Amino acid sequence: MKALWFDGALKLVEKPIPKPKPGEALVKLRLGGVCRTDLEVLKGYHDFHGILGHEFVGEVVGPPESPLLGQRVVGEISLSCGTCERCRRGLARHCLKRRVLGLKDKDGAFAEYLTLPEENLHPVPSGLPDELAVFTEPLAAALAVEEAAPGGTGERVLVIGDGVLGLLVSFTQALRGRETHLAGHYREHLCLAEAYGVITWLAAELSMTEFDLVVEASGSPSGLELALGLVRPQGTVVLKSTYADRFALRPAQLVVPEVRLVGSRCGPFQAALRLLQRGGLDTRPLISKVFSLTEGPRALKLAGEPGILKVLLSMGN
Amino acid sequence: MKALWFDGALKLVEKPIPKPKPGEALVKLRLGGVCRTDLEVLKGYHDFHGILGHEFVGEVVGPPESPLLGQRVVGEISLSCGTCERCRRGLARHCLKRRVLGLKDKDGAFAEYLTLPEENLHPVPSGLPDELAVFTEPLAAALAVEEAAPGGTGERVLVIGDGVLGLLVSFTQALRGRETHLAGHYREHLCLAEAYGVITWLAAELSMTEFDLVVEASGSPSGLELALGLVRPQGTVVLKSTYADRFALRPAQLVVPEVRLVGSRCGPFQAALRLLQRGGLDTRPLISKVFSLTEGPRALKLAGEPGILKVLLSMGN
Repeated sequence: MKALWFDGALKLVEKPIPKPKPGEALVKLRLGGVCRTDLEVLKGYHDFHGILGHEFVGEVVGPPESPLLGQRVVGEISLSCGTCERCRRGLARHCLKRRVLGLKDKDGAFAEYLTLPEENLHPVPSGLPDELAVFTEPLAAALAVEEAAPGGTGERVLVIGDGVLGLLVSFTQALRGRETHLAGHYREHLCLAEAYGVITWLAAELSMTEFDLVVEASGSPSGLELALGLVRPQGTVVLKSTYADRFALRPAQLVVPEVRLVGSRCGPFQAALRLLQRGGLDTRPLISKVFSLTEGPRALKLAGEPGILKVLLSMGN
Repeated sequence: MKALWFDGALKLVEKPIPKPKPGEALVKLRLGGVCRTDLEVLKGYHDFHGILGHEFVGEVVGPPESPLLGQRVVGEISLSCGTCERCRRGLARHCLKRRVLGLKDKDGAFAEYLTLPEENLHPVPSGLPDELAVFTEPLAAALAVEEAAPGGTGERVLVIGDGVLGLLVSFTQALRGRETHLAGHYREHLCLAEAYGVITWLAAELSMTEFDLVVEASGSPSGLELALGLVRPQGTVVLKSTYADRFALRPAQLVVPEVRLVGSRCGPFQAALRLLQRGGLDTRPLISKVFSLTEGPRALKLAGEPGILKVLLSMGN
């Protein structure tokens, strides 16, 4: 099969179709999404070598006895051992021995096939187009803000960063009925959020302060500095981005205003699928361009350019 | 009156007795406590010039019509305006125009007299000795951990730092029935916590991980690095110390394990007074030495030396 392989350089290679282990399904991929984390991998950030990619929709084509056979699926990306202390305590996605699809010790989704444990897979409702289903993973990550910072609808929320994740967070916060603000750099991205009633700001023009909740999704230390300056005392900053740069935190920035800074990563797939299926949220305007798998290196290059939103890879089925 | 004055240098000076404004009481001081924050002021950290000191117990001696006249009192340190947006929202201790006793635009407690709004003052129960009452402010700060990170008694807690604040946090966590650990550098300090059933560690020998809650009270960036390494995924780190050094935070340290880092400052005076009065917690073993006010500069010098716990200033009444 064709696969997009990274071993210090990114290249299209020919690999054997992977064989599912007991409990695993073989998934024939239909569509994959390029994530900012993939671009960090290309910079060496995760020290990952293998097939890239962790956002996907595909079809289960094996093994023949799989209860999911013939189903379109999306999949959770962490593979846990099920036996370590963390798994036993209900922290499976933080399993001590976990592998992560396309990120850690597990070949990813930018290929014609992948394998994943059946427990990681979620059937895609039949009416839901691939172009929406492929956003399940990032939309779940956006919904995870709620788990990181549960709060009331009366809260005033600011999302920093108008990339795909920041936009999805702003959509989902607005859909909760909250007064939601989005600060970014691209007028054409901000417009997409205005359709959900989000109040938008070009970052340099942001003149409000004292947000109850600030979600940092810009992927840069300056975004976190901004967030800590705009959150109200005893408010919450949710940190969604991982990046290699360090942030020079002054402890007094948290202690004096009694602010909480919460890391947030993966989220609820089922909730994301329900939201996509019910039509309250349309991710298609977030698609910048669709490439074929064989154009993978070009696709990832484009994905890293300023102002580009979601780049998809079609596996050509 | 005599007062310990800081204007770049610390000196004993003669000042007029302050005049209470309407709503304020005049307090004749009995005993003051030196806090690590006072030592930071001496380094220029808060850019404060004036009479130092914010931990105290004293007696209300004016004005004659004060309902507190003749009462022994302790006092909350933030003076709020009562009218700004934050005060109206119930965030008075984060008042935009706040002054802070001995720390910001308000003369402090290392003197013979101070003034404070009556609403800041709490009467000290008659049976409670000054040597305990003077710990009300730091004990309240220790109890604030509960507000920053509410959680169950089943949680395993680690406190980092065996100074006064770390010890008080470990005492109060243990009194909640939690499995409480304390890591520090002084065997003789750790012993004080063992009396409360706290499990103690010399920091270098700490061999456990995966604490549900870690409280950083060491006052150094290395303490926070340790805390982030020992907290379980989705656990909480409460940051109690302010210091001038910056901490080089890798966002992935919070995002990947979905950890929350919560700043915590002041706490509930009434709860602290109840705890002291009921005798469940004795702060007297934390007293390293008592000086007279006139020995103030020597007292603050000693307070900054390694291994010293609470240094008190007696106003000689």
